[in-house]
Amino acid sequence: MNSVRLGEIVAALGGELRGDPAQAIARIAPLETAGGDAITFVAQAKLRTLLEASQAGAIVVAPSLVAAAPNDRSLVVTDDPYLYFARLTQWWAQRLRPVPPAGVHPSAYVAPDAQVAASAVIGPMAVVESGAVIGERVQLGAHCVVGAGSRVGADSVMHPRVTIAAGCSVGERCVFQSGAVIGADGFGIAPTQGRWERIEQLGGVRIGNDVDIGANTCVDRGALEDTVLEDGVKLDNQIQIGHNCHIGAHTVMAACVGIAGSTKVGRNVMIGGAAMIQGHIEIVDGVTVSASTMVMHSLRKKGVYTAIFPVDEHASWEKNAVTLRNLYALRERVRALEKAQKKE
Amino acid sequence: MNSVRLGEIVAALGGELRGDPAQAIARIAPLETAGGDAITFVAQAKLRTLLEASQAGAIVVAPSLVAAAPNDRSLVVTDDPYLYFARLTQWWAQRLRPVPPAGVHPSAYVAPDAQVAASAVIGPMAVVESGAVIGERVQLGAHCVVGAGSRVGADSVMHPRVTIAAGCSVGERCVFQSGAVIGADGFGIAPTQGRWERIEQLGGVRIGNDVDIGANTCVDRGALEDTVLEDGVKLDNQIQIGHNCHIGAHTVMAACVGIAGSTKVGRNVMIGGAAMIQGHIEIVDGVTVSASTMVMHSLRKKGVYTAIFPVDEHASWEKNAVTLRNLYALRERVRALEKAQKKE
Amino acid sequence: MNSVRLGEIVAALGGELRGDPAQAIARIAPLETAGGDAITFVAQAKLRTLLEASQAGAIVVAPSLVAAAPNDRSLVVTDDPYLYFARLTQWWAQRLRPVPPAGVHPSAYVAPDAQVAASAVIGPMAVVESGAVIGERVQLGAHCVVGAGSRVGADSVMHPRVTIAAGCSVGERCVFQSGAVIGADGFGIAPTQGRWERIEQLGGVRIGNDVDIGANTCVDRGALEDTVLEDGVKLDNQIQIGHNCHIGAHTVMAACVGIAGSTKVGRNVMIGGAAMIQGHIEIVDGVTVSASTMVMHSLRKKGVYTAIFPVDEHASWEKNAVTLRNLYALRERVRALEKAQKKE
Repeated sequence: MNSVRLGEIVAALGGELRGDPAQAIARIAPLETAGGDAITFVAQAKLRTLLEASQAGAIVVAPSLVAAAPNDRSLVVTDDPYLYFARLTQWWAQRLRPVPPAGVHPSAYVAPDAQVAASAVIGPMAVVESGAVIGERVQLGAHCVVGAGSRVGADSVMHPRVTIAAGCSVGERCVFQSGAVIGADGFGIAPTQGRWERIEQLGGVRIGNDVDIGANTCVDRGALEDTVLEDGVKLDNQIQIGHNCHIGAHTVMAACVGIAGSTKVGRNVMIGGAAMIQGHIEIVDGVTVSASTMVMHSLRKKGVYTAIFPVDEHASWEKNAVTLRNLYALRERVRALEKAQKKE
Repeated sequence: MNSVRLGEIVAALGGELRGDPAQAIARIAPLETAGGDAITFVAQAKLRTLLEASQAGAIVVAPSLVAAAPNDRSLVVTDDPYLYFARLTQWWAQRLRPVPPAGVHPSAYVAPDAQVAASAVIGPMAVVESGAVIGERVQLGAHCVVGAGSRVGADSVMHPRVTIAAGCSVGERCVFQSGAVIGADGFGIAPTQGRWERIEQLGGVRIGNDVDIGANTCVDRGALEDTVLEDGVKLDNQIQIGHNCHIGAHTVMAACVGIAGSTKVGRNVMIGGAAMIQGHIEIVDGVTVSASTMVMHSLRKKGVYTAIFPVDEHASWEKNAVTLRNLYALRERVRALEKAQKKE
Repeated sequence: MNSVRLGEIVAALGGELRGDPAQAIARIAPLETAGGDAITFVAQAKLRTLLEASQAGAIVVAPSLVAAAPNDRSLVVTDDPYLYFARLTQWWAQRLRPVPPAGVHPSAYVAPDAQVAASAVIGPMAVVESGAVIGERVQLGAHCVVGAGSRVGADSVMHPRVTIAAGCSVGERCVFQSGAVIGADGFGIAPTQGRWERIEQLGGVRIGNDVDIGANTCVDRGALEDTVLEDGVKLDNQIQIGHNCHIGAHTVMAACVGIAGSTKVGRNVMIGGAAMIQGHIEIVDGVTVSASTMVMHSLRKKGVYTAIFPVDEHASWEKNAVTLRNLYALRERVRALEKAQKKE
């Protein structure tokens, strides 16, 4: 982890430098813990007090907060410090994690009729099955599987142990984390005489560009048509996307979300962790669903939607929960009281 | 995706054909989007309007809906169109996805004392450990692991990257999706002096015939005896079955369900997505548990059980949630009012 | 599964033997089902009736329950029978599951500059990447991946298909179940013009000694600093630990829990299955969170916290749920009644 010069950062990412371009930066650190060898950032005015006390060697800051920064620190002034920070992490990661040399690891298996770009990196024990197409500069980590006839677009990075089933397509510049499963069979069964008949899932999964998928997240293949994630969708870990869902561009979901089959989620939707979305409904563009919220019906109006039982000390919860089981009866009692009062 | 003749479908699957057996069918499609080259089905009377407007080349339909179908379409009349559709997808999948040739892929590892049927397909990088038994026509996908002494019954299909730990048994005609973990250690710990002592899990997992298990679903091994899934159980993705659970035949669970240890679930139970079931309880045959419902106690009577906080706009939710934290007090106030009223 | 002599058990694990040391014990079994060839235990006074009726050949029992045991059974008297049982399972497992011979399986890939202790066991198809360090007597199961520069401490056991990403460290005597993913990228994104910019995750994961991690559980790497699990943490299956969380020693979580990023959980905390914990909050030492509870704010006082919608028959739930959506209004009506009453 050799250090860089502050001037190199500004040369690469822009911003107005107020300080010495030769200053050494050894790390990126949070505002509270950054020392003299670190660069940090402050994106919220409410952090002004932390900013004033910061020991960071250099601070990325918005024009409005420049005055609050300690006098003797280097500053990088930019309109959107959080975005600057994001790009700084990308630049930093490229320095620290050089792309492995192109080529197929000797322990990998690539089917004879698969197409792997010469610039791609195929890791140890990876499997690329018949007819699959791996684009330029793709990185398949150890133990990845790309099924028959599937495609992974240029510059996408599959961390170790990502499984893409047969007949799926992944766009460019996607990043999938370990354990993700793309294209498992959707859950289709038909009842018959007290048991279940399997409905084979004949569709695939179609994933756009710049889509990120978290660890152990599953996106099921469609029953007849494709499950679709549009460009820029960002999924955290342990998410379940049912068959035939259609997720609009730049929609983001925190960990542990589940979306049942055939639901259509719009663009720029934000879904909090562990929210659960019913199947066969629609959520329009720009909706926010709070964490742990169960959505039972379509949300056709932009807004924030919530359904969380408020946490409480157990004894207090218990008394309220018992009452809740008789809530309708309580309402009837209030109604009776109101009626009696009116009569008086 | 070469097309078939309508007559081939009816020859294979039955039903009464009203139309030209030579008609070409290129795909199976949903009622709304099926074109002239597609076969579709309609299983619900409430879809009559869609049926009347359908552009499908052929329609699988119940006798009661024949009159509503457009005059110029081919029909396949059958008592249970949904079941017919399920079988049609199976027949179609067999056409499109030929079974790979039998044999062990050169990159797989099969322990010298494992038994693999000559008709089985062992995929790239798969591992079959010591003493394991792989039945006739079993397909193990890439990166599957079958642990020491475990058995996989005839005609079962393990998609890529299924892990079956040591000492487990899987029946015939099962289908497991990628990332499934069968036989991980159950969660057993004993407290001692502010820390936890591990309880080794000495049981296994016993899975019947025709069981389907979804992607990244886990079924833990038993502590002393076996965890059991009876015949025909169907589990969707990301499900957690704790140690020593016993799941009755033909019970079905949607994605993200969790069942804590030692719970007994009856036959033909239906559990909605993300429902959570307490440990050491019993759910009798034929119960339905709604999605996202937490079941804290045994359900000893057939019926539908639900526990969902109703979703609302956030501001409205917030006012109700605050009130909910004082619900018991509200009931006391109503009681006081009633008392006062009685005195009058 | 050859049997042991009762005397061997007591010699290894202690306790006061009342019975014949030469008695053969073929299995450990639950109190209800244990036969004459089995040893069982009883840890709770409320199980006295089961104890009186037990058919077990030998019973581990506390001094206070000795009198309730059938006269003709062998007893092992010990102060903490549950702990004794835990250690008995460990002793039993060591007998039944001999450690595989040390060495690297020929099908595994170990990078030339990785360090693998001579006493370690590296299973089939496992991958140990550049600069990784594998300690003494570590067992890496089939298909495990240890990323570049990561460390696994002595005596830790990784079941088949555990993935540890680059730059993480795992302590000694840890046990991770199949499908666990340690060090996937945390979910960091910055909004910009209707889409999302990736924040590279530059921290790692630091895991102490004696930590157990369940199947398909994910622990994300930190954004800038490390995600930390202290000594003795026990995580069940399908858990999600977000980036920069800090989990205190001997804290235990049942399956399907989710903890969002940057949350600090104290020591000896117990979190029930499927509980969800908001990000950027703090839970102090010794707190218990009930199953399926969503924690939206810091819990700064030791105690038991719960938030569960009580399950009910669907029709009853529906009436209560509708009323709940108007609960605040109901409170206003009660308030109006109270006001009217006061006026009288």
